[in-house]
Amino acid sequence: MKYSRNSDERSVLNRIYEGSRTIAPGSGRISLRLGIGDDAALWRTRTGYETILTCDWFLQGTHFLANRHPPEVVGYKCLARAVSDIAAMGGEPRCYLLSLALPDTQTGEWLRKFLKGLRKASRMLGCPIAGGDTTRRKEILINITVIGEVRRARAILRSGAGPGDAIFVTGRLGEAQYGLRLLLASSKRVSPANKGLRKHFYPEPRLAVGLWLANHGLATAMMDLSDGLSSDLPRLCEASGVGAHINEQALPRVKIEGKNAKNFDAAELALHGGDDYELLFTVARNNVPRIPHEIARVPVTQIGEIVSEKRLALQRKNGVVTELKNQGWDPFR
Amino acid sequence: MKYSRNSDERSVLNRIYEGSRTIAPGSGRISLRLGIGDDAALWRTRTGYETILTCDWFLQGTHFLANRHPPEVVGYKCLARAVSDIAAMGGEPRCYLLSLALPDTQTGEWLRKFLKGLRKASRMLGCPIAGGDTTRRKEILINITVIGEVRRARAILRSGAGPGDAIFVTGRLGEAQYGLRLLLASSKRVSPANKGLRKHFYPEPRLAVGLWLANHGLATAMMDLSDGLSSDLPRLCEASGVGAHINEQALPRVKIEGKNAKNFDAAELALHGGDDYELLFTVARNNVPRIPHEIARVPVTQIGEIVSEKRLALQRKNGVVTELKNQGWDPFR
Repeated sequence: MKYSRNSDERSVLNRIYEGSRTIAPGSGRISLRLGIGDDAALWRTRTGYETILTCDWFLQGTHFLANRHPPEVVGYKCLARAVSDIAAMGGEPRCYLLSLALPDTQTGEWLRKFLKGLRKASRMLGCPIAGGDTTRRKEILINITVIGEVRRARAILRSGAGPGDAIFVTGRLGEAQYGLRLLLASSKRVSPANKGLRKHFYPEPRLAVGLWLANHGLATAMMDLSDGLSSDLPRLCEASGVGAHINEQALPRVKIEGKNAKNFDAAELALHGGDDYELLFTVARNNVPRIPHEIARVPVTQIGEIVSEKRLALQRKNGVVTELKNQGWDPFR
Repeated sequence: MKYSRNSDERSVLNRIYEGSRTIAPGSGRISLRLGIGDDAALWRTRTGYETILTCDWFLQGTHFLANRHPPEVVGYKCLARAVSDIAAMGGEPRCYLLSLALPDTQTGEWLRKFLKGLRKASRMLGCPIAGGDTTRRKEILINITVIGEVRRARAILRSGAGPGDAIFVTGRLGEAQYGLRLLLASSKRVSPANKGLRKHFYPEPRLAVGLWLANHGLATAMMDLSDGLSSDLPRLCEASGVGAHINEQALPRVKIEGKNAKNFDAAELALHGGDDYELLFTVARNNVPRIPHEIARVPVTQIGEIVSEKRLALQRKNGVVTELKNQGWDPFR
């Protein structure tokens, strides 16, 4: 139409939303009445559910490197990590808003590949785009808002852990940090297919595990591991007014193969490495036998227990107990 | 507590949320179950309502200038302009998420004043903070997500305008652009109290007007004017599949006093100036007599009419009819 011939923002928006429209209608799972092309999106919560709201920065230079992270990875990961906060409440994602700022030079091939990765995550996670905001900027800036749902009174908060509760994690810890180190250490561009990079490039929010725990009412507290166990566990403990005792030997950890085995300390990666998006949750002692070794094919491992004393203790493999120091990711440190 | 002694992000977060907690509980107006300090916020929509979702960039250098815009203004305006999208649907704001990226040097006095302005807007608009994300960055980046509500099936979309509908705007157009020009033309720092800057610094989302129109079912289409009439009117027309005929003489426009009167063209400012956050809406011909001259003490003015031919015509004050060219704000132009 003639109105928009001279509007370049419009052409960027059209590309963002073109493939995405097909996800929203007819999926039967969501109740998005109106998305793109109006002032805002309209959304109906299902009866008996609460809405979950979360937002996440994903910024060039801070959260990804334009010369190291392929655009498909940037697209996939910006949504996957935001959705992880919904998993961490025991909820299901419903739709998202994309705020994107781009240099002129990235509106071609880069944007195409970015959208390919984003749509891959959107399909995988059942989370269609509902709207957003776009502008021009000399660096790539992304902010994602995810809207999810959880059955009323079923959301699993950080604040419910009590003394004696067992502490569990999903998957293996330190894999994403290991991938990041491989990426940074390599002089040439690393293939996205590289197995060691899989978790760093394509994290999988543990939605099915979170939902199972919420439906069974088995977790007393839960959060996702985004900054590393030694940064995130203190947050859960503080919210619950308790402490924790972690057994280093019990930590499910990244497997390091070949010549890298002597260059990396898997236990350190598991304790402090960020970006895993595994779930950390607590279970009352009498319910521990009800927690299987795998939930939705994801391994679940007990790594310690909640204590009433407000300290974080780490039992090393030689038996010595030390303080677990916060050495994870903090943007202001 | 000892956990967070070495976490500086934590201290920034504490400052963002400290004054804000008092807004959420007990207000009786919102149903926010959980906000700060967990993975996400939980939210219950009122029965009979739909949720409205919108997000907005507010970036240093693009949307504001750190050396020109006082931090209170940045704080106030980032929320007010995002809430305007809720007004544009005929809805009411309920809560917002703040994504903030800051340089280390701005976490002191700048942040304090920014939060003062943000809280002023939050109180005025009845829109408490529900969560967000914070990180460090060399420039100030802001993204605001606003969650609002509207009665089911009452939301006013852009797409409902039909031929013969009258076109209305609220307030006076061009005031914000005039304020921006005064700001940029001044060699010294302009006082935030300067009358000419009021609209540019402290825009007022037209919530009461939007709500009145939604409750009375009188507007066939509506949007807010963020990029300027000549940019935004085409969007409403395209969404509705119609054209428009605008009468330049009818445009309520910025009043320019004193020596500036000869340096500025008020009609051009009214046609193309952005950032006013007034409402643009259409009304079926037979309902025009039901639209008062003021709604909630805001003047409402008819400026033209919708036509079936898909073109935008501007009748100049000399009677000549020209094409209304899109000369408003486009970040990619």
